[in-house]
Amino acid sequence: MANFKGHALPGSFFLIFGLWWSVKYPLKYLCRRKKNASIGSKAGFHRLEIAEGIAKASFALIGMIAEQFVPDGPHLKLYNYEEKQWDHLMNWQHATMYLFYGISGLVDIVVHSTNVLPVALDRLMLSIAVFVEGFLFYFHIHGRPMLDYHVHQLLVVAVFGGAACIFLEVFFRGVIVLEMFRTSLCILQGSWFWQIGFVLYPPSGGPEWNQTDHNNIMFITMCYCWHYAFALLIMGLNYTVISWIVRTKLKQTPSMEIGLLKTSERDQESEDEI
Amino acid sequence: MANFKGHALPGSFFLIFGLWWSVKYPLKYLCRRKKNASIGSKAGFHRLEIAEGIAKASFALIGMIAEQFVPDGPHLKLYNYEEKQWDHLMNWQHATMYLFYGISGLVDIVVHSTNVLPVALDRLMLSIAVFVEGFLFYFHIHGRPMLDYHVHQLLVVAVFGGAACIFLEVFFRGVIVLEMFRTSLCILQGSWFWQIGFVLYPPSGGPEWNQTDHNNIMFITMCYCWHYAFALLIMGLNYTVISWIVRTKLKQTPSMEIGLLKTSERDQESEDEI
Amino acid sequence: MANFKGHALPGSFFLIFGLWWSVKYPLKYLCRRKKNASIGSKAGFHRLEIAEGIAKASFALIGMIAEQFVPDGPHLKLYNYEEKQWDHLMNWQHATMYLFYGISGLVDIVVHSTNVLPVALDRLMLSIAVFVEGFLFYFHIHGRPMLDYHVHQLLVVAVFGGAACIFLEVFFRGVIVLEMFRTSLCILQGSWFWQIGFVLYPPSGGPEWNQTDHNNIMFITMCYCWHYAFALLIMGLNYTVISWIVRTKLKQTPSMEIGLLKTSERDQESEDEI
Amino acid sequence: MANFKGHALPGSFFLIFGLWWSVKYPLKYLCRRKKNASIGSKAGFHRLEIAEGIAKASFALIGMIAEQFVPDGPHLKLYNYEEKQWDHLMNWQHATMYLFYGISGLVDIVVHSTNVLPVALDRLMLSIAVFVEGFLFYFHIHGRPMLDYHVHQLLVVAVFGGAACIFLEVFFRGVIVLEMFRTSLCILQGSWFWQIGFVLYPPSGGPEWNQTDHNNIMFITMCYCWHYAFALLIMGLNYTVISWIVRTKLKQTPSMEIGLLKTSERDQESEDEI
Repeated sequence: MANFKGHALPGSFFLIFGLWWSVKYPLKYLCRRKKNASIGSKAGFHRLEIAEGIAKASFALIGMIAEQFVPDGPHLKLYNYEEKQWDHLMNWQHATMYLFYGISGLVDIVVHSTNVLPVALDRLMLSIAVFVEGFLFYFHIHGRPMLDYHVHQLLVVAVFGGAACIFLEVFFRGVIVLEMFRTSLCILQGSWFWQIGFVLYPPSGGPEWNQTDHNNIMFITMCYCWHYAFALLIMGLNYTVISWIVRTKLKQTPSMEIGLLKTSERDQESEDEI
Repeated sequence: MANFKGHALPGSFFLIFGLWWSVKYPLKYLCRRKKNASIGSKAGFHRLEIAEGIAKASFALIGMIAEQFVPDGPHLKLYNYEEKQWDHLMNWQHATMYLFYGISGLVDIVVHSTNVLPVALDRLMLSIAVFVEGFLFYFHIHGRPMLDYHVHQLLVVAVFGGAACIFLEVFFRGVIVLEMFRTSLCILQGSWFWQIGFVLYPPSGGPEWNQTDHNNIMFITMCYCWHYAFALLIMGLNYTVISWIVRTKLKQTPSMEIGLLKTSERDQESEDEI
Repeated sequence: MANFKGHALPGSFFLIFGLWWSVKYPLKYLCRRKKNASIGSKAGFHRLEIAEGIAKASFALIGMIAEQFVPDGPHLKLYNYEEKQWDHLMNWQHATMYLFYGISGLVDIVVHSTNVLPVALDRLMLSIAVFVEGFLFYFHIHGRPMLDYHVHQLLVVAVFGGAACIFLEVFFRGVIVLEMFRTSLCILQGSWFWQIGFVLYPPSGGPEWNQTDHNNIMFITMCYCWHYAFALLIMGLNYTVISWIVRTKLKQTPSMEIGLLKTSERDQESEDEI
Repeated sequence: MANFKGHALPGSFFLIFGLWWSVKYPLKYLCRRKKNASIGSKAGFHRLEIAEGIAKASFALIGMIAEQFVPDGPHLKLYNYEEKQWDHLMNWQHATMYLFYGISGLVDIVVHSTNVLPVALDRLMLSIAVFVEGFLFYFHIHGRPMLDYHVHQLLVVAVFGGAACIFLEVFFRGVIVLEMFRTSLCILQGSWFWQIGFVLYPPSGGPEWNQTDHNNIMFITMCYCWHYAFALLIMGLNYTVISWIVRTKLKQTPSMEIGLLKTSERDQESEDEI
């Protein structure tokens, strides 16, 4: 759907996931550092992964249905035999993007609820899904007006960055810095989808953006960086709050000892995971 | 051979290998997880590698001979002295691609039948062979009509992706997710060769594709993603069947225990391999 | 600030950091090899990291203030409502670049003064800051005259090289060769900023450079390599002096023994760090 | 020197190094596998590294002197004040390429004759030298006729491939497959320099190549792959001969035992090296 809602919908999906991850990964990391707390929560985190997979698959399903069955959608019709041309290709492309996220969600569910599949497959499949999104965007923005092209190109940077980061996680699973990097790119993507919506389809009353003004391009590029700074700020705040909660709720290990364990802990963790 | 058969032949080769790998790697992985079954089959898998090398070298030989000796082929003539120009360069380029796969097959045979060469050389040589294929395609599609160019460009994406994946396997040998990723790209390549054949040389009676319609480009890009989704579906089905066979045929380890061993197993395996 | 000072300021910041690193990392490496010396200095190096973070954040603050409040700066005004266009976008972009270095400085301080954050986050954030610098330069040199474009393009090469190197350090922390590579690229960036200033804004009396002469492009490319050779020379000199100081000041381990320990030491160190 | 000799000279340097490596690395690998033989030769291989560094630095010096002092060279003059333009920039660029190889040679000598520098620095410096070569070629072939541009572009592929491979060796030192990959790219580069000489400056009597014929481009691309196949063939032959010599000269370990040790040996070696 090439309109405001068509950008707000995936933007909200990515924001929800990004914000959720900005809570989950610091929590997991800080709990794991306090060894005594981690025993009880391992099964919990496992169940969370399955819930995440279900959420991902549901979002993808909602997206696919929305793209197909909105009033001006293709309603599963791909070829217009009367006009001898393809029908609503944009909606079909978007539905394809959602499809791969759906597959990724299914793989998540199977990986974490059975023991048949190798664990790293969830990351690989997510990486493929993100890559396919970037791949389709890359070829689908060809020949658009300059500003439209540019805002989508910036999106593609975040998307391919995310795909690369998740692919690295196949090999460096559970490394907190990669998980936080992925989270920041996910929030960036989410808020940038909203920004694209506002730029290309300004809400009623707002002025149109000049598509060919070079200054707009320069501003938008900078604005993209501010979005990222904002994503980092949100993650920083969440991290602080979670760190404070973990510290106060679980007053079992004196902070002194943690300080001494710091380096050795890190080594041990990375051994566990890599 | 710039015709339908010239695309169907390599397409079939890649499909055969891809489908075979989608059986072999899950089987190997699942047998290895059930330790007791893995003792007997190690030598078996070893012999399989040699057989694979022979198959690869044979396919390459068939390809080279086909490219050289089809009725309108070069018959080993490279330069036309009468017209003072190169002769049948396309066929020579295709033969060169097959040549590198042939070398890769030979290296496979030597690596797995003797103990002279380092084991990782089979992956390196395969990676080089795939890269050379992509490299030649990349330079050889220059200046073609838009749709022709685009379908080959999409092929090149799969080819370079495969080369990168196999190069990673030099360092992360036996990691199941990389092997499955490679398999999926191989099936994609195979089915895409067939698709290219159908698009550029539609079977008798079918309509010609409009080479310059932007909608066709958009559809073809999306179609490429569907091919990949289809490859993933096939792999999923094969994995399920194999997993079911391994589970029923080798009822020695209770599933309970496997669940507990899951994480530790994975670590141990990756230690073995990396 | 698109003038000489606007290039000399960041150039000096990078040069200061680069030269400081060319002293710090060899010192750290050589002290660590003499095991007995390393016990006392661990806390010292820790405090240095915090000081570095403070310096980085201060430099970034100076840069941001300079970009905003120079006489012809935007003074925090982003949009000119009278002329209906963006105001001083260049200064805002430069301020954005400094902003990310500021964030990186803050993260450094928090990482090394508390034990809340994962240690590798300082490298990730620095890598992001350097990447953002390159990213903004990449989009902001579009459409400039040829020589102007080329000198900034060369800068971007060093910047992205640096970002990639620092990203590798997330995984290979404390590997001396990566640290020295980063140092060399940092010095290169610093001296190249000065060079850009001299080329684009020749000091009073000097001749203007011909922006479209292809020979100037070729010379500037070569000159860039000489800058790098010079950076390597400075690092070599610093390394020699420091090595000589460490050797003479800490005459506790006979050089004979070190020779024998060489290989095993290296292994142990890399185990410690990776 | 933009003539036949200017390409034959570096071509010969690369060929000498490539052929030497195709002997050295298999020998080192096969000797190391026969544990008993490796004790005596460790110091020998060490001295070889120093000799290699001296050879590299000498070749670089010869190259620099040749570029500067050939009859039509710049004789250290950089700027022609009479014509107000740069003088012999090509020769200066080539001399700059040699300069970095010279630095790499010096680093090799210092690394292997003293214990001051970290061992991995020799690979990093070589990687930088190769990258600088590719970097200068990349910017220096701009605006040349099509065939000239293309043959140098193909060269750049081999150069950047080599730089990436050597950079990987910083982390995976002594991995035989990487060393052999580097060797193959080095031989390719050497023989390709000769090929460029023959194409652009055909020896007296030979016909000129048509610079704009697309068929020539296609043939040259294919020819490049044949050069690589030839490099692989030479390496295969050398490997076979060396393997036969090591096997016959050092008949201490029965081949039976080696077969059994194969996998465990490999693991142990990679542990030693990585």
